[in-house]
Amino acid sequence: MTYCLGLLVDDGLLLMADTRTNGGIDNISSYRKLHALSDEPGRELYVAMCGSLSASQRALARLIEPGAGRAQSLGEARSMTEAADLVGEAVRSANKELLEALGPDKAKSGCSLLLGGRIGGGRPRLFLVYAEGNHIECQREIPFLQIGETKYGRPILDRILRPSTSLPAAIKVALLSFDSAMRSNLSIALPIDLIAIPAAPGLPTVARRIGQNDAYFADLSQRWSATLAEAAGAMPDPAFVPELEPVRALSLVAEARA
Amino acid sequence: MTYCLGLLVDDGLLLMADTRTNGGIDNISSYRKLHALSDEPGRELYVAMCGSLSASQRALARLIEPGAGRAQSLGEARSMTEAADLVGEAVRSANKELLEALGPDKAKSGCSLLLGGRIGGGRPRLFLVYAEGNHIECQREIPFLQIGETKYGRPILDRILRPSTSLPAAIKVALLSFDSAMRSNLSIALPIDLIAIPAAPGLPTVARRIGQNDAYFADLSQRWSATLAEAAGAMPDPAFVPELEPVRALSLVAEARA
Repeated sequence: MTYCLGLLVDDGLLLMADTRTNGGIDNISSYRKLHALSDEPGRELYVAMCGSLSASQRALARLIEPGAGRAQSLGEARSMTEAADLVGEAVRSANKELLEALGPDKAKSGCSLLLGGRIGGGRPRLFLVYAEGNHIECQREIPFLQIGETKYGRPILDRILRPSTSLPAAIKVALLSFDSAMRSNLSIALPIDLIAIPAAPGLPTVARRIGQNDAYFADLSQRWSATLAEAAGAMPDPAFVPELEPVRALSLVAEARA
Repeated sequence: MTYCLGLLVDDGLLLMADTRTNGGIDNISSYRKLHALSDEPGRELYVAMCGSLSASQRALARLIEPGAGRAQSLGEARSMTEAADLVGEAVRSANKELLEALGPDKAKSGCSLLLGGRIGGGRPRLFLVYAEGNHIECQREIPFLQIGETKYGRPILDRILRPSTSLPAAIKVALLSFDSAMRSNLSIALPIDLIAIPAAPGLPTVARRIGQNDAYFADLSQRWSATLAEAAGAMPDPAFVPELEPVRALSLVAEARA
């Protein structure tokens, strides 16, 4: 499994992906899932991929390696929508090849991805490209897109993230979302790769790998757990439960002997 | 979809279920999913059911209505394990009938359930009965069991719930777990039914339906959102992002015109 998250706030765009892959619990490895398709000024294109690794690497190869029958290259795309169309074609082709090779019984769901970046001026944009190649674009109403193991990390986003959230705060919330997902699902794990593209022209794009020894993430995770426990403790208990005397001494086998 | 949660702490047992059922987004209704199979002194048996409503009602009927070829009734079960076996048989039979009636293409996953209660003295016990009829029992290491739409509501349980959590605090944490699930998935909704069985002998079992106008739940949900937002704001931002000037004026069509 994988967790990929894209946030699009007024201040900029954030793409984040973990690095764990598995082909069963005894075949776990670490692969980069966040890639730059282009990082030139005026043409910044990044993808975070999930699903079959062979399909996603195949799709990447079709996008960035020369030849292979590509009608149009990403370098010629005139807008993010055109780039998303090209990426969608590559994803659809790669998944179709995988399905033909493995047959319908063995083929899993193929790969899907988040595409973020900007071509020319303007705000960065964020797309979700489905396994079938079609895509949706992130809008202000829900300023994030997720793929992979999305559910554990979603409540914190629903509650806290807004388009007005600053980019540093958005990174913080995104890391808390990953922390929740990693605690509840072993198939998501550090290191996490992230890329942040400030919306303001001229500010540099920031990339970072957050590994096992990242002091900021470790501190954030510990503080958050402590804060949640404290906050939950401070909430009023329901008044409809009577005061209870704890009974801790009863053994599980007591009933069997009764 | 449905969310059912069972918590087993030192102070007692808690079973909770929402009431929303759906057969598609235009066929939404409210059904009780938390039922008493027996509430006599010395024989308290409660189930929270999820999955096909026709299968779960069929399983219930096999358990509580006379006749229907039952070899042994719940009233004769000598332990919670025997009760779980009988409930498992009823679940397996009901799911098998549904599969035969609908055929493998139409049959969904059948029903599964949480069984909690106590027979005779001793601590209350909690079981998860799978659709196939086999079951597992809740242990101290992870003091909860979930069925249905489990993921959104799990992080708060992983972080906060411990066997030493008091029963009132456990109810509070469970309601926060439901609040998270309901915010992220429309197919889970109020009212929520709950039953709490104190471990100490002699204390009464508490049942409650928490509806749209429940003042405690509404207050808890609002406080929790505010607390989380405040707590996230108080966490330090990552130092690796430069100070950014917000750019909010750029239109989505600016790029298309560029």
